[in-house]
Amino acid sequence: MNTSELVELAQQLRVDSVRASAAAGSGHPTSSMSAADLTAVLLANHLRYDFDRPAHPGNDRFVLSKGHASPLLYAAYKAAGAIEDGELLTFRKLGSRLEGHPTPRQVPWVETATGSLGQGLPIGVGIALAGKRLDRVGYRVWVLCGDSELAEGSVWEAAEHAAYEHLDNLTAIVDVNRLGQRGPTRHGHDLDAYARRFQAFGWHTVEVDGHDVDAVDRAYAEARSTAGQPTVILARTLKGKGVEAVQDREGLHGKPLPEPDEAVAELGGERDIRIHVHEPPAARVLHAVRAGHLDLPRWEKGEEVATRNAYGEALAALGTGRGDIVALDGEVGDSTRAEFFAKEHPERYFECYIAEQQMVAAAVGLAARGWVPYAATFAAFLTRAHDFVRMAAVSGAGINLVGSHAGVAIGQDGPSQMGLEDLAMMRAVHGSTVLYPCDANQTAQLVAAMAGLEGVRYLRTSRGDSPVIYGPDEEFPVGGSKVLRASDRDRLTVVAAGVTVHEALAAADALDRDGIQVRVVDLYSVKPVDRSTLRRAAEDTGCLLTVEDHREEGGIGDAVLDAFLDGRPVPRLVRLAVRRMPGSASPDQQLHTAGIDAASIAAAGKLLVEEAVVR
Amino acid sequence: MNTSELVELAQQLRVDSVRASAAAGSGHPTSSMSAADLTAVLLANHLRYDFDRPAHPGNDRFVLSKGHASPLLYAAYKAAGAIEDGELLTFRKLGSRLEGHPTPRQVPWVETATGSLGQGLPIGVGIALAGKRLDRVGYRVWVLCGDSELAEGSVWEAAEHAAYEHLDNLTAIVDVNRLGQRGPTRHGHDLDAYARRFQAFGWHTVEVDGHDVDAVDRAYAEARSTAGQPTVILARTLKGKGVEAVQDREGLHGKPLPEPDEAVAELGGERDIRIHVHEPPAARVLHAVRAGHLDLPRWEKGEEVATRNAYGEALAALGTGRGDIVALDGEVGDSTRAEFFAKEHPERYFECYIAEQQMVAAAVGLAARGWVPYAATFAAFLTRAHDFVRMAAVSGAGINLVGSHAGVAIGQDGPSQMGLEDLAMMRAVHGSTVLYPCDANQTAQLVAAMAGLEGVRYLRTSRGDSPVIYGPDEEFPVGGSKVLRASDRDRLTVVAAGVTVHEALAAADALDRDGIQVRVVDLYSVKPVDRSTLRRAAEDTGCLLTVEDHREEGGIGDAVLDAFLDGRPVPRLVRLAVRRMPGSASPDQQLHTAGIDAASIAAAGKLLVEEAVVR
Repeated sequence: MNTSELVELAQQLRVDSVRASAAAGSGHPTSSMSAADLTAVLLANHLRYDFDRPAHPGNDRFVLSKGHASPLLYAAYKAAGAIEDGELLTFRKLGSRLEGHPTPRQVPWVETATGSLGQGLPIGVGIALAGKRLDRVGYRVWVLCGDSELAEGSVWEAAEHAAYEHLDNLTAIVDVNRLGQRGPTRHGHDLDAYARRFQAFGWHTVEVDGHDVDAVDRAYAEARSTAGQPTVILARTLKGKGVEAVQDREGLHGKPLPEPDEAVAELGGERDIRIHVHEPPAARVLHAVRAGHLDLPRWEKGEEVATRNAYGEALAALGTGRGDIVALDGEVGDSTRAEFFAKEHPERYFECYIAEQQMVAAAVGLAARGWVPYAATFAAFLTRAHDFVRMAAVSGAGINLVGSHAGVAIGQDGPSQMGLEDLAMMRAVHGSTVLYPCDANQTAQLVAAMAGLEGVRYLRTSRGDSPVIYGPDEEFPVGGSKVLRASDRDRLTVVAAGVTVHEALAAADALDRDGIQVRVVDLYSVKPVDRSTLRRAAEDTGCLLTVEDHREEGGIGDAVLDAFLDGRPVPRLVRLAVRRMPGSASPDQQLHTAGIDAASIAAAGKLLVEEAVVR
Repeated sequence: MNTSELVELAQQLRVDSVRASAAAGSGHPTSSMSAADLTAVLLANHLRYDFDRPAHPGNDRFVLSKGHASPLLYAAYKAAGAIEDGELLTFRKLGSRLEGHPTPRQVPWVETATGSLGQGLPIGVGIALAGKRLDRVGYRVWVLCGDSELAEGSVWEAAEHAAYEHLDNLTAIVDVNRLGQRGPTRHGHDLDAYARRFQAFGWHTVEVDGHDVDAVDRAYAEARSTAGQPTVILARTLKGKGVEAVQDREGLHGKPLPEPDEAVAELGGERDIRIHVHEPPAARVLHAVRAGHLDLPRWEKGEEVATRNAYGEALAALGTGRGDIVALDGEVGDSTRAEFFAKEHPERYFECYIAEQQMVAAAVGLAARGWVPYAATFAAFLTRAHDFVRMAAVSGAGINLVGSHAGVAIGQDGPSQMGLEDLAMMRAVHGSTVLYPCDANQTAQLVAAMAGLEGVRYLRTSRGDSPVIYGPDEEFPVGGSKVLRASDRDRLTVVAAGVTVHEALAAADALDRDGIQVRVVDLYSVKPVDRSTLRRAAEDTGCLLTVEDHREEGGIGDAVLDAFLDGRPVPRLVRLAVRRMPGSASPDQQLHTAGIDAASIAAAGKLLVEEAVVR
């Protein structure tokens, strides 16, 4: 498109942003208007995208990191012929797929959900990584950012990652409209301030007037021709550009225009320009599952193996069997044992250094391109990426997260390194699966099973060795559990997972010597939980005791209660969990001090049974 | 100290780091040895600190951001005469206050818990902010960082914040030993790479040989004399410096030295140098509570007010009454209503822009200096700072966090903006308090009450208006609840909080018309929870129905169950919560679609009561 055509297209995007927001009675027209020229030039002259085939492997990928500018995105879809004007006007209404912030759950052209600022670029880096290192079909990734969101540290994790990996297929476009939500940004229109930062991180930078379509056109061309490093286009723009009443004014963030009809008139009225976006070149899907024979590692009963080791070995084997498996780690691969995968499959391993947000974001980006990522760090440090995990669920992204060094059982390192809140965090994620194995064979089976699930999958592993209690051919369906001890005289059920399974078994032995028969349930699937087994145990034994190496809130104790929330009477219940702030101590001392070791279970179990008799 | 004395002191710190780790059988001697010279020079020649009076308001503040180098810190305490050699050798043992990673819970010279990398500098910025803008007694803040942790985005949020606030009382010292946990860092010994980044963010930088004590001495002097901007000292060091067997070698992170006695000999043997650290100048505490009359805002019953508005007004009033209250916000003060405080008390308001990790870190730093911070953003975006909240609990920091825009009730903006996992996150934080008011007067009372609590306090506020149902003089003790409807014929108890209180009251009216009397409990204190009221309700009515604008995991439903976990039989229970992924819709449509509006409560309540009869 030539200059005048681009200007017209940009005005149409503004008009449609104003109209959509006016119809909704909410939304962010002013944040859309600042970026209209940037978007028009990209759409008309640079993006290669087949809207009829969003899964085309050669398609460029566009991420609207400033997700609140969704009216602009939807206006662009209309201009590209992907949606009609009638649908545009359903914006933000019940049942419309055109949500307030874009999500890919219903809109096939959206790569990832945005709306939590500072996430689009990190995830875009993940997509660009897939393009550069795995898919290799030449697509480019374009990420439109706001200036306000550059205050998020995650953006600089992404900047570091992208430059380090020489992602010249990635272009960040920053709509520097100088106004955040409640007022001016730190740097206003000082494009140099941003340029210095990106240059320091290894990016090529281009500063441009974001309302000069020819300059923007040249900037995109420069980005496309820059080799060896990612490019950021820093565009000076005005919020609300084109409508005098709102242009460059404070206090108008996130509000429909006061006089939309006048605004549309001032913008030159409605247009119905439809453009044909450049199609991508033919491309072959390279990342199809190259399913080979799955030869999982096997351990003999009685061996002493840490579940984190089993994770590493199983993942390496899974990677051998399936060509679509990729692994990421946050510079602790020697601890999580992700290094086992790295050694076997270096081409599919992504070292993310100590940047957990970026690690999870990269996983989301890789998953968006069809890869099956496993991202690992200490369970404690996955809390760093909580918002990215939350947004992954909004996207419906299929990612596997692995948190090692669960609980007080890690020992001397103390509470900063202990995953004690991770089960609560992961259970509350919409549609998540939460798995917590207690032995090596179980871990291996679950690692393999995770690959086939939907949504966010979480595996919790332990630092220390534990005995192998299951044979290598035992099966562990997700949503199931294992009854490890049972008799028809059981008076108590102990529900445990991970390290406490072994403590529970020892406690059951001790109680048995006191004449109290105990059922022991290994609740390796914390979510979904095995309701029928738990209900039967409650009916048979009357009392439940849960024991977990986790805070008392949100973990296994709460998961067990899910089995009794259909209005039925809930059994007598006691939970043992980590109630104090631990210090440093040996693993055994930690379990004892926290009151979750065999002796504590036995004492609490005995009390519960005796109280039941009294009543 | 002169050169040779500094060299000797540094060697002692190395020797003691080796000895402490050897005695513990774990720990990080090599990461301590790289920073020994940096620490010796600081301790002997630049730090102003009275170890006998850690609360001295004029004391400099030292933060060990690379918390795993705790042996070095404790060795420094010994050199300063604060601890004896015998205690040094209790490192990492059960009951010792010298934990694997330092925490201030028992050690008075530790400013903040570290061990989750990338947190020391952000919190140091908070302390420096207190020094620069509030305390104004001239203390300096020194933060010793590792090079690996510079990959964390939180470090760059801190860098941005510190430079923007011209914190020339802050010095970051980066121990660039080029080796992370599992191998080399991204930039190795390229000090320029780090210098470029810090310079771009507005810092003064000094590059130095970290083992040249004179050069280090000059660098600290330069930092102290630099005005108008923070300084970072980038020090080239060798991990394991001084012991040939481990020096600059991979694979030795976090491991005691293989031959500690030989290492000590190679380092010149044990020494017992005790130094007198420079004392701070006399300083007056300026941040004492200037308690004035507390004149909280008042609303009449029936007024329509959003609880977020009540938060803003109450906080402004609290700030007028108490001089130690400070407020922070993540560039959404017009939404959280923190702007009300900003207008009244601009000198105690800290705009953190869109950097939630830095906002919480700054709050932790301000709290460490005795201020009472309230930090607010959307509840959804507090997930961004989860790891900082977790570590605040390890520190025992007293901070108030406020999450606005709770739940699906926000309406059109969709799931990215909805706080739906925040209660689960905050309940699982050790020692936390979780409050969720439903009306303006209740909000105001709770905002004031929070200031006097220990640990992490969380308040959840709502976007939309809701009717005032309590009088302005009603009291709301933390740990309590309010029974809003009760009779001796109640057959069901509905437990609600926040927006669902109003839905529950409407549902109770509807059920009353059907001849079903319902008790309604307003559970404004989600943690601690009012066990006695819930137990009485269960005994009186037999059935409990919880309803919450939050995911079903970890929220109000789970909190209610805490009342029944002492082994007693649990009542019949049904919970209503947000089980689907919402899209865009009006607030009322959202509540209905999620199944947590009055109609849904009435339908579920009726079913529960009827089933109870059948059984």
